[in-house]
Amino acid sequence: MDMNTLPIGVFDSGVGGLTVLQSLKQALPTEDFIYLGDTARLPYGSKSKQTVIQYAHQAAGILDKKVKCLVVACNTASSVALDDLQKSFPNLPIIGVVEPGAQACVNTVQSGKVLVLATESTTRWHAYQQAIASLNTKITVTELPCPLFVALAEEGWTNGVLVEQIAHEVLKDSLNETYGCVVLGCTHFPMLKGVIAKCFNQVPVIDSASVVAAAVKTRLSHEKLLNPKKCQAKIDFIATDSIERFKAMASKFMGIDLSHDQIVLHSDTPSAFKATTR
Amino acid sequence: MDMNTLPIGVFDSGVGGLTVLQSLKQALPTEDFIYLGDTARLPYGSKSKQTVIQYAHQAAGILDKKVKCLVVACNTASSVALDDLQKSFPNLPIIGVVEPGAQACVNTVQSGKVLVLATESTTRWHAYQQAIASLNTKITVTELPCPLFVALAEEGWTNGVLVEQIAHEVLKDSLNETYGCVVLGCTHFPMLKGVIAKCFNQVPVIDSASVVAAAVKTRLSHEKLLNPKKCQAKIDFIATDSIERFKAMASKFMGIDLSHDQIVLHSDTPSAFKATTR
Repeated sequence: MDMNTLPIGVFDSGVGGLTVLQSLKQALPTEDFIYLGDTARLPYGSKSKQTVIQYAHQAAGILDKKVKCLVVACNTASSVALDDLQKSFPNLPIIGVVEPGAQACVNTVQSGKVLVLATESTTRWHAYQQAIASLNTKITVTELPCPLFVALAEEGWTNGVLVEQIAHEVLKDSLNETYGCVVLGCTHFPMLKGVIAKCFNQVPVIDSASVVAAAVKTRLSHEKLLNPKKCQAKIDFIATDSIERFKAMASKFMGIDLSHDQIVLHSDTPSAFKATTR
Repeated sequence: MDMNTLPIGVFDSGVGGLTVLQSLKQALPTEDFIYLGDTARLPYGSKSKQTVIQYAHQAAGILDKKVKCLVVACNTASSVALDDLQKSFPNLPIIGVVEPGAQACVNTVQSGKVLVLATESTTRWHAYQQAIASLNTKITVTELPCPLFVALAEEGWTNGVLVEQIAHEVLKDSLNETYGCVVLGCTHFPMLKGVIAKCFNQVPVIDSASVVAAAVKTRLSHEKLLNPKKCQAKIDFIATDSIERFKAMASKFMGIDLSHDQIVLHSDTPSAFKATTR
């Protein structure tokens, strides 16, 4: 089997990882992709670490052997399950979203304060704080939970005066501080990058989706796994529930119209998957 | 055992049912309550009917024998699991949120158009449309999904100019129609009743939390189950996960500050509960 022509696997608890897929598609236009959204069991953020590790294992098990590398395009799963996945699937290159975001942060700022915008669970687990501290101890990380941004992204409210006013209100306590950069630590937030950047004026905003895409490209190149073909790439979608909602979100997050048969409903999976799958 | 002095059980997938509990507390100030929030497995809206029925059964099983009646303060569980619960627990009076809301609607409007605001899942299952049609076929029901209102309620964004602008934008396509009444078909939405009512000007807004409380009072009175005591009532809380978040929401939804030991983390439950409980 020629590994180079295998697709890249992208896994998320739901639809947020579609922003990462979109950036991957732009950075690697001749690669094929399989996107797995565990829509039956979202959100992962309110689950225990043990449960998230179990779900991530099942997802990796579904994609293993079918893909040449796996992108964990979910901040919660990246925060708690990445080490475990890498140990359990030693032959599969696995890349999370937290480390590339942290790396981009320390490439941008040498010392002082940075702000990470994320969901409640990611801020509660301090994943970015730890990842940035392991690279540079002179940086002080403030993590701000912005759950409303998830709802705005899923509603397609991503620009305009009203959305700017909402973002300003969410971020108001941070706007008087001086940050070296702002890290978007949730895969939904690249949808609101323009609005967030406007609030912070000249401060660089690190879009985790595009830095992850760059990290994947570097890794594949390093491992000589890039696809040499020149033809149009293909994306397969797998969702564990709610195909209709997934279609609507794919349209909002990636600007693509999926027909029903382009998404496979995955229910032939371990019992924990079946438990919440129609 | 004196049934009258037993508490009233209130069950929801998470925190939305706290608005119903708040209305129950006001309508029945001398009653005790046990509130069960299945925070480990929310949201129910994205689950299959079969799964929601299973979860509702487990919740009713936990509260059965400990309570004199059960209020299913969750639109999703009321929509799909109520008949089944009533058959499985024939000795326990069980009251959902959809029927009282539908009844209040037909008491307000004799014919013409009404608007139901709800979550995506409740609108997808047409629970209010069916319940209202079973009472009055001259009423045409439009169901509008407003997922952003859930996020606003949970963030405590419930009034002020910005929230009014957001509500106006969410509802804009409905504001040119002539509705006889607006039904709040999600337990989160009573938090935004003032803002929603302002958008619709003179149109009556039916707050499902308070009509459910009235229905429970009538039912208990009819079955001679009201508590005759005059002392201060007690509320116990059970959550299946995320105690900290539950506390924060209780403060937002009910204006009460819960100490940590007032909430019991319920993990000694059937396997399906355990699966996602820390």
